Amino acid sequence: MSQGGCELAGYRGVAYQALKAAQVSIGDVIRIVRAGEVYEGSLMPRSELGDDKHVVIKLASGYNIGVRVTSDCKIERIGVGSKPTYTHVVREVGGRNLPRVDVISTGGTIVSRVDYRTGAVEPALSASDLYNAVPELSELADIRAHILYSELSENITPKHWSGMALKVFEVIRSGASGVVVCHGTDTMGYTSAALSFALRNLPVPVILVGSQRSSDRPSSDAATNLMGAVASASKAPFATVAVAMHESTSDDAILLHRGTRVRKGHTSGRDAFKSMNSPPVAKYLLQTGRLEVYCRDIQRRDPERNVELKNNFEERVLHLKFYPGMRAEIIDWAIGEGYRGIVIEGTGLGHVSRTLQDPISRAVKDGILVGMTSQCLYGRVNMNVYATGRDLLSVGVQPLEDMIPETALVKMMWALGQTDKVEEAERILKTNIEGEISQRTLYDDPP
Amino acid sequence: MSQGGCELAGYRGVAYQALKAAQVSIGDVIRIVRAGEVYEGSLMPRSELGDDKHVVIKLASGYNIGVRVTSDCKIERIGVGSKPTYTHVVREVGGRNLPRVDVISTGGTIVSRVDYRTGAVEPALSASDLYNAVPELSELADIRAHILYSELSENITPKHWSGMALKVFEVIRSGASGVVVCHGTDTMGYTSAALSFALRNLPVPVILVGSQRSSDRPSSDAATNLMGAVASASKAPFATVAVAMHESTSDDAILLHRGTRVRKGHTSGRDAFKSMNSPPVAKYLLQTGRLEVYCRDIQRRDPERNVELKNNFEERVLHLKFYPGMRAEIIDWAIGEGYRGIVIEGTGLGHVSRTLQDPISRAVKDGILVGMTSQCLYGRVNMNVYATGRDLLSVGVQPLEDMIPETALVKMMWALGQTDKVEEAERILKTNIEGEISQRTLYDDPP
Repeated sequence: MSQGGCELAGYRGVAYQALKAAQVSIGDVIRIVRAGEVYEGSLMPRSELGDDKHVVIKLASGYNIGVRVTSDCKIERIGVGSKPTYTHVVREVGGRNLPRVDVISTGGTIVSRVDYRTGAVEPALSASDLYNAVPELSELADIRAHILYSELSENITPKHWSGMALKVFEVIRSGASGVVVCHGTDTMGYTSAALSFALRNLPVPVILVGSQRSSDRPSSDAATNLMGAVASASKAPFATVAVAMHESTSDDAILLHRGTRVRKGHTSGRDAFKSMNSPPVAKYLLQTGRLEVYCRDIQRRDPERNVELKNNFEERVLHLKFYPGMRAEIIDWAIGEGYRGIVIEGTGLGHVSRTLQDPISRAVKDGILVGMTSQCLYGRVNMNVYATGRDLLSVGVQPLEDMIPETALVKMMWALGQTDKVEEAERILKTNIEGEISQRTLYDDPP
Repeated sequence: MSQGGCELAGYRGVAYQALKAAQVSIGDVIRIVRAGEVYEGSLMPRSELGDDKHVVIKLASGYNIGVRVTSDCKIERIGVGSKPTYTHVVREVGGRNLPRVDVISTGGTIVSRVDYRTGAVEPALSASDLYNAVPELSELADIRAHILYSELSENITPKHWSGMALKVFEVIRSGASGVVVCHGTDTMGYTSAALSFALRNLPVPVILVGSQRSSDRPSSDAATNLMGAVASASKAPFATVAVAMHESTSDDAILLHRGTRVRKGHTSGRDAFKSMNSPPVAKYLLQTGRLEVYCRDIQRRDPERNVELKNNFEERVLHLKFYPGMRAEIIDWAIGEGYRGIVIEGTGLGHVSRTLQDPISRAVKDGILVGMTSQCLYGRVNMNVYATGRDLLSVGVQPLEDMIPETALVKMMWALGQTDKVEEAERILKTNIEGEISQRTLYDDPP
């Protein structure tokens, strides 16, 4: 869709026309005058994420801003800037005793950058790429970069979870003081749950990070999220799997969400990620570099390397979101297909219609592990309140407390991956392992 | 599970033991002294929703409170109260010119009351039952009560939606100035969307109402939600389908959510219902009885009765929530089963893994209407940003904008119920009908 070649890579529509008319190219230092305001900086390329109304320039401060092109704005070239580069100015860190943080890339918007020659979006992930893109990182850690996958996260499968767990295991065994996993945001919550379960006896923090807007966009959260992730991996006192993403739409803070408690709750906002039924584990303040810790998790024990790897996941697990009019045949189909587990996202306290009772009962009798969560997302299932819930309990459906449905699904895949015995998988599923189930609180206590 | 007979109906555990030891019965006026505090009132029965630690008494003010039974509390009978009754004190309303509001009961916690004779929970829904349970209603409307169904809402199906739409249609044609539908909370959001589409050219408000805690519980929201619903049906200036539920955990206000924009977002909280991607339409202030209106919806036009009924829903629609590891066979199964539509709850901006592309393409070629929503719930799908989305668009998947998945499902059932032609159903599905799709806003505009 982009009309720009190399000179105006990624620009289209109004913005492209205005830049073309001004005869400027990417990398040029330009001045935009609009409504009495003056903006000066290097013209940046745009990715396919961008709109067609903004021009993005890098200010002398290093920050990118987007300037809306209007009919009355004036654009002129005030200097032929050197083309930006990602590969030279590696900072000297060897002389300083910074903790080693391994950054593992799996793909997604966070690791994309625009190639200035072709305009294509490509992964940017050598350590020097990272230092150049986010110079602040060199103050935070001695970074080792690894490219493991290059997948948009909708294509991540349980096999990728196994591979990521293995890679994290390896870098911890080889001496990392903290690990950052760059990941697309779409399924980052599923992967963070998977790594939470697959890495036992973790000695250091493992921080997943993504970005909702790519780094060439005016409002990108890529650099700030990465800073929060690397700082947390480097100095957090806890040895937990967590997700680092913007707290709000401003640039104040990065929240660290527990890996088993986080979900993406907005399609596009920078503050899309939320902790569910549980507070965040920490907050990284961007202005001061301070890490506020809210959890009493197991402490990091840096010299220890005896992390355990349990990275087998059973893929024959079906996730079913119940809805009015849902037909019972789908359960019998799953039985016939050889599924070993079903996670139901029921209504309210954990309900489905009575028409599903019999097929669910058949599934349980057939040795399928069936767990109940709630499509409400917030709150806890309680199948003792109404007859519907009690009937489901009586046929052997497992109430999954306040686990969010996505974590319950991953955990069932993991539990069934650890054992062939359904009773043992059931026991694992219902035991709190990484903060995914909290102690029951009597919700109807008067305040 | 209840150990209480008629005398202590619904009580069990610690609370039952304490009441039994004090030799008191339901209806007795009792005094509880605990930690220096004195509580006096009539002993109320409890439903199966209650815990085993609280005694519920009705104070002289009419409000119910729960008192926690502790080892040091003292309970004594101070008077043999008359047994409460639901059926006598009907207020005279004929002499006052109040708007007629028809209250249609379909079941759920809102319409349950404890029978003082048997201890069973039964629907309480004659007009006099309602006036007695919530005396304030007689100030708000001239109520006509109808019992249509008595179903927990997890058992409500599209056939019930058709029946409810027909009943609402009939009472409006016969002169109702507003309609209240009492409904279980579990699937109330689906039903409110269904009624929004099935009742065209609505001349008066139709308000669904439920409660998260039954009326015999200390923290019940039944009476206050019902007041908000009846007041809104009686005097709201708009002719819209809305859901009336508590705004917060306090008793300050009842929010009116647009029927196509509301979902239950907590398993048990009184403030479980939220408007999604859209503000509420109104707020009813319980202290003052004032209705604050936030929408510019079509105005009620009371004497008009030309409401249209389009209450056909196609049940052969499959709702699929995508997840990592989801196997492609389920799409082919749906094709073989004769489904006419599939609503996908994809990730992020509207994505699924590339392994689902081919079967989805086959489904579309087979004449199945396939729509895309996001499991993020908040935000808008945008399938033009990444290659994954563009590939799905190219095979004919319909992006469903900022419709929430539950409303998209109901709307697809309704669209396919209006026509045999998939192109026409697609046109209906993508056209905003009752505020379920909002105008696109450029989400990446800098603030």
